[in-house]
Amino acid sequence: MPSNLGITSPEDLKRLSPQELRALAKDIRDRIIETVSKNGGHLASSLGVVELTLALHTIFDAPRDKIVWDVGHQAYAHKLVTGRDHVFHTLRKLGGISGFPKRAESPYDVYDTGHASGSISYALGLAMARDLKGEDYHVVVVIGDGALTSGVAFEGLNNAGGLGTRLIVVVNDNSMSISENVGGLSFYFTALRMAPAYRSAKARLEKALDKMPNLGPAAVKMLRRVKGSIKHFLFPEAWFEALGFSYYGPIDGHDIEAMQRVFQDAKALEGPVIVHVVTKKGKGYPPAEKDPERYHGPGPFDPATGEIFKKDGPPAWNKVFGEAMCEFAKSHPGLVAITAAMCDGTGLGEFKEKYPDRFFDVGIAESHAVTYAAGLAQGGLLPVVAIYSTFLQRSYDQIVQDVAQQNLKVVFAIDRAGLVGEDGETHHGEFDLSYLRTVPGMVVMAPKDERELVNMLFTALKVPESCAIRYPRGPAPGTPYRDALANPEILEVGKGEVLSRGKDANILAVGSTVYPALQASEILSKSGVSCGVANARFVKPLDREMIGELLKAAPLLVVEENVSAGGLGEAVLSEAARAGHRGVAAISLPDAFVRHGSQTELRKLTGLDAESIAEGVRRLLKEVHDR
Amino acid sequence: MPSNLGITSPEDLKRLSPQELRALAKDIRDRIIETVSKNGGHLASSLGVVELTLALHTIFDAPRDKIVWDVGHQAYAHKLVTGRDHVFHTLRKLGGISGFPKRAESPYDVYDTGHASGSISYALGLAMARDLKGEDYHVVVVIGDGALTSGVAFEGLNNAGGLGTRLIVVVNDNSMSISENVGGLSFYFTALRMAPAYRSAKARLEKALDKMPNLGPAAVKMLRRVKGSIKHFLFPEAWFEALGFSYYGPIDGHDIEAMQRVFQDAKALEGPVIVHVVTKKGKGYPPAEKDPERYHGPGPFDPATGEIFKKDGPPAWNKVFGEAMCEFAKSHPGLVAITAAMCDGTGLGEFKEKYPDRFFDVGIAESHAVTYAAGLAQGGLLPVVAIYSTFLQRSYDQIVQDVAQQNLKVVFAIDRAGLVGEDGETHHGEFDLSYLRTVPGMVVMAPKDERELVNMLFTALKVPESCAIRYPRGPAPGTPYRDALANPEILEVGKGEVLSRGKDANILAVGSTVYPALQASEILSKSGVSCGVANARFVKPLDREMIGELLKAAPLLVVEENVSAGGLGEAVLSEAARAGHRGVAAISLPDAFVRHGSQTELRKLTGLDAESIAEGVRRLLKEVHDR
Repeated sequence: MPSNLGITSPEDLKRLSPQELRALAKDIRDRIIETVSKNGGHLASSLGVVELTLALHTIFDAPRDKIVWDVGHQAYAHKLVTGRDHVFHTLRKLGGISGFPKRAESPYDVYDTGHASGSISYALGLAMARDLKGEDYHVVVVIGDGALTSGVAFEGLNNAGGLGTRLIVVVNDNSMSISENVGGLSFYFTALRMAPAYRSAKARLEKALDKMPNLGPAAVKMLRRVKGSIKHFLFPEAWFEALGFSYYGPIDGHDIEAMQRVFQDAKALEGPVIVHVVTKKGKGYPPAEKDPERYHGPGPFDPATGEIFKKDGPPAWNKVFGEAMCEFAKSHPGLVAITAAMCDGTGLGEFKEKYPDRFFDVGIAESHAVTYAAGLAQGGLLPVVAIYSTFLQRSYDQIVQDVAQQNLKVVFAIDRAGLVGEDGETHHGEFDLSYLRTVPGMVVMAPKDERELVNMLFTALKVPESCAIRYPRGPAPGTPYRDALANPEILEVGKGEVLSRGKDANILAVGSTVYPALQASEILSKSGVSCGVANARFVKPLDREMIGELLKAAPLLVVEENVSAGGLGEAVLSEAARAGHRGVAAISLPDAFVRHGSQTELRKLTGLDAESIAEGVRRLLKEVHDR
Repeated sequence: MPSNLGITSPEDLKRLSPQELRALAKDIRDRIIETVSKNGGHLASSLGVVELTLALHTIFDAPRDKIVWDVGHQAYAHKLVTGRDHVFHTLRKLGGISGFPKRAESPYDVYDTGHASGSISYALGLAMARDLKGEDYHVVVVIGDGALTSGVAFEGLNNAGGLGTRLIVVVNDNSMSISENVGGLSFYFTALRMAPAYRSAKARLEKALDKMPNLGPAAVKMLRRVKGSIKHFLFPEAWFEALGFSYYGPIDGHDIEAMQRVFQDAKALEGPVIVHVVTKKGKGYPPAEKDPERYHGPGPFDPATGEIFKKDGPPAWNKVFGEAMCEFAKSHPGLVAITAAMCDGTGLGEFKEKYPDRFFDVGIAESHAVTYAAGLAQGGLLPVVAIYSTFLQRSYDQIVQDVAQQNLKVVFAIDRAGLVGEDGETHHGEFDLSYLRTVPGMVVMAPKDERELVNMLFTALKVPESCAIRYPRGPAPGTPYRDALANPEILEVGKGEVLSRGKDANILAVGSTVYPALQASEILSKSGVSCGVANARFVKPLDREMIGELLKAAPLLVVEENVSAGGLGEAVLSEAARAGHRGVAAISLPDAFVRHGSQTELRKLTGLDAESIAEGVRRLLKEVHDR
């Protein structure tokens, strides 16, 4: 395995022969596999674009030309050939390089991203700034076909087509099997990929459809309906051209020389152009080629066998959610689940298997997901929308307008709330308590453990209000919850629970901070401080009665894994101020973006581990004493 | 003018002959013109869809069949024929019927909307709920061609095309003149409209292009590039079919019988279908036909002449913003302005005229607008994004991810913040202070008057941070500001101003509440209460020093035109609690959606007029006294 690729900048690539580039591609793959097998990371997508990366960096002149990576989780090869080979072993580690492009890391990175589909809009901004300033560089976007499902990508394409400036959009079509429910456009892409081979033999169209790999009969029927007309096979590029783009492709995304030729041509064009490149996710690493979804973002694994190391211990939060969904679906025939391209990530894999008709993957389309759920609710169903906290930011308007304002009943299962760890600042769910608290009528809750998650989901299904339940990434505390699945409890909305009463102080925690608060209480008791712990359970509506009692009883420290502005801390501190209580403080996430590192490291850094919470109580007591 | 149309439900329409329907269309128009000329409202779009409404309600069987109006501002005719003729004179009045569909008003309304482009997602939810429940009704969407620019509409189309269920999407193409910058799709629509006439005469294509009305040479060049290939004229429906829809059209949207025939056909289809209908905005009312933008949402006017009554008094906030932009553009060559289909609404009309190259209307695409601005900033320009508060909710994720996280410098000019009046709950800007306060590094400010708006915009251009300036709909207080335009001041970020010091109490106001607070202070002084007023200016960062002094000096009442959760009130109350101050309270907008009415009425209802603020101070003083 190569420990040094011998490439310090893209200039080095331009001196290599085609054979040498192909050999380098293999070395890059080995380096990616080696590093990700230790650090975890985005494997399959990074392996898929190695040749594409080399073709781009040999034809374009970065950093003068701007290469904008959509999502950014496929940029490992880009990092390796732009001066970060020597630090690549620190990938995703605290203080190490990020798993995503970062402008602070390198002048070759132009867009710090992590959420899909914004690249075209951003690149168009760059291109128009170039034009207005009379500059002359190329702007190249690399975006996956899946990311084109998202509305903002369409908005960007439409605006770019209208403005007509030079912009090269490489659509990285990674030919995953078609999933029946990622939208009409995915069928269109299949047609695009198939079209060239059949243009000269249109009579074989029917035969081709029957032979298409990975397509069930329903999909074939659909494809026939969508693409049935021969005109799409004559003019497959119509969709992009209708938006104002020229179209090249499809091109083999593992053939460096073929891509180089097309990029050279694309450079000469005056207007916006789509270069449609077909790649294979996981390319060059058989386990990842075989199961790209499993190797999309694996934890550490054995590079020789591909065996992903299993972690012992409690189940992940999303797994508990998925189990509870399957259980409650039995007794709630109207229960339907919606995900935005994160079926397994949100823990809904089993639900999808068991209730395929009641499961909707809408693709990367979080805004639509929520309004679609509102429509399902208006139609008499009970929708549960499962979206990561950070991605649900894309649905804020829809939550306000289409759910809350219409007083429709939708349940939000918000995974990856709080600090997510190695994916870093683009993926932390730091804001959901705040933006959801603004929404009139919304119930906002966070469970301390598995059992409470099960009961909260059950409660959310039963009460009339729309409810949001937020829970972290990673393993839950490990409390038994099977009995709760069988006999779930309806929690009283707006009631917290006092877990222990302190003589000297109390902590009001919520969700992920409850167990650390209990540990902090133990730490404090060792130094003679009697500190109780209460679990807020509901961030909205607040348990004013319990909070009032706590404020009266002793100094109170609020602890939340959310930013300060508009979070639980401000809610409680405002209550205290209105009622004239003193001796209250809060620990929240800082008013700044938290970088990447392990969840444990980051919680310690942000003051949310048990020791820091205990220290926070001591500080509060000192302040009260000194006042 | 008819005072009663004689239609109590759509059943009555089904008994009318074609001639009678045409006569009714005229009566409906008269009624709309009469009412809007008194109450103000959405005129041009409602006049455009009278025949379409009649065709829909004669062929479909509402409320069993569901008619989903996108945006909803075109639903006046729908209201008139679904039992609301007798209350139509109360349109947009406090306690009267809404200018938008409301399910609480009528079983014929199925989607309470006001923001564009969500209708397809919502209707798809309804359609899938129908299928899952084994029901059998039709779901029909009416959406404007402009609304298709928005990403969520695309997400809905894509998902609908993939799912393949029965759904009828009527694209109401209101053939406005093409604006050069609303995207590639608008050119496509022009091609669609032209296509049928030229299918049989492809040789005339060039000639047709030259003759196209309202197209400048640049647009013709663009159209030729986009649509130059003859295939689009052979197969204009390709774009929709690529997404999985059947396509009918284009059809004359003022020919009731033609539409009835097509809707009858569409009812029989198994899958999703686009019915492309071409209408004329303002149809039947010459002033509105001539200038549909001016009559989009006019205030009261003379129905005979079309003369819109001018209001005397101070300029509107957006006008002052627009003037300042024109002024500062002279000294800031990098300054560019971005609007999302609201050029005149945001006051940028003059800027567009003067600096066409530095003005971008991206269409109804708020998410894209912000990421596009981030790209412009990365490219070295100084973008100002002007979007109404309520619509900026669609950009929350982009503000966090693409602007703040990248530490790029973008200025947000947020119009229509607070209560907007007659448009009601879908249009109030109640949340922006809260959701913007969560954003790390963002400066959030609100001016008390014209002069301060000018200085805040200048400050926003000069300081390194991204800045948001929020200001209300309607007239500003009327303070002189010309000298500020000529000699603008850079305000110190995070510093408020004490306008007067009270012995008994103080009010901390911000933006629209500063002048009412000053009036409240006068009211209080008459009853012997000495109440000072401070202007926060900055909601983020807070002026902790000033607030600390105010809290020490006397009881403090915070007053803001924003919801309580996460607003200025909670920020200040939390400060007070941390510092151990007592005697503080806040008046904010309620945790509920505020209905329609005049701004004056609504501010009184929500406790934000001078009298209510004075009463709030008295209440606070009593609480402090009683404690």
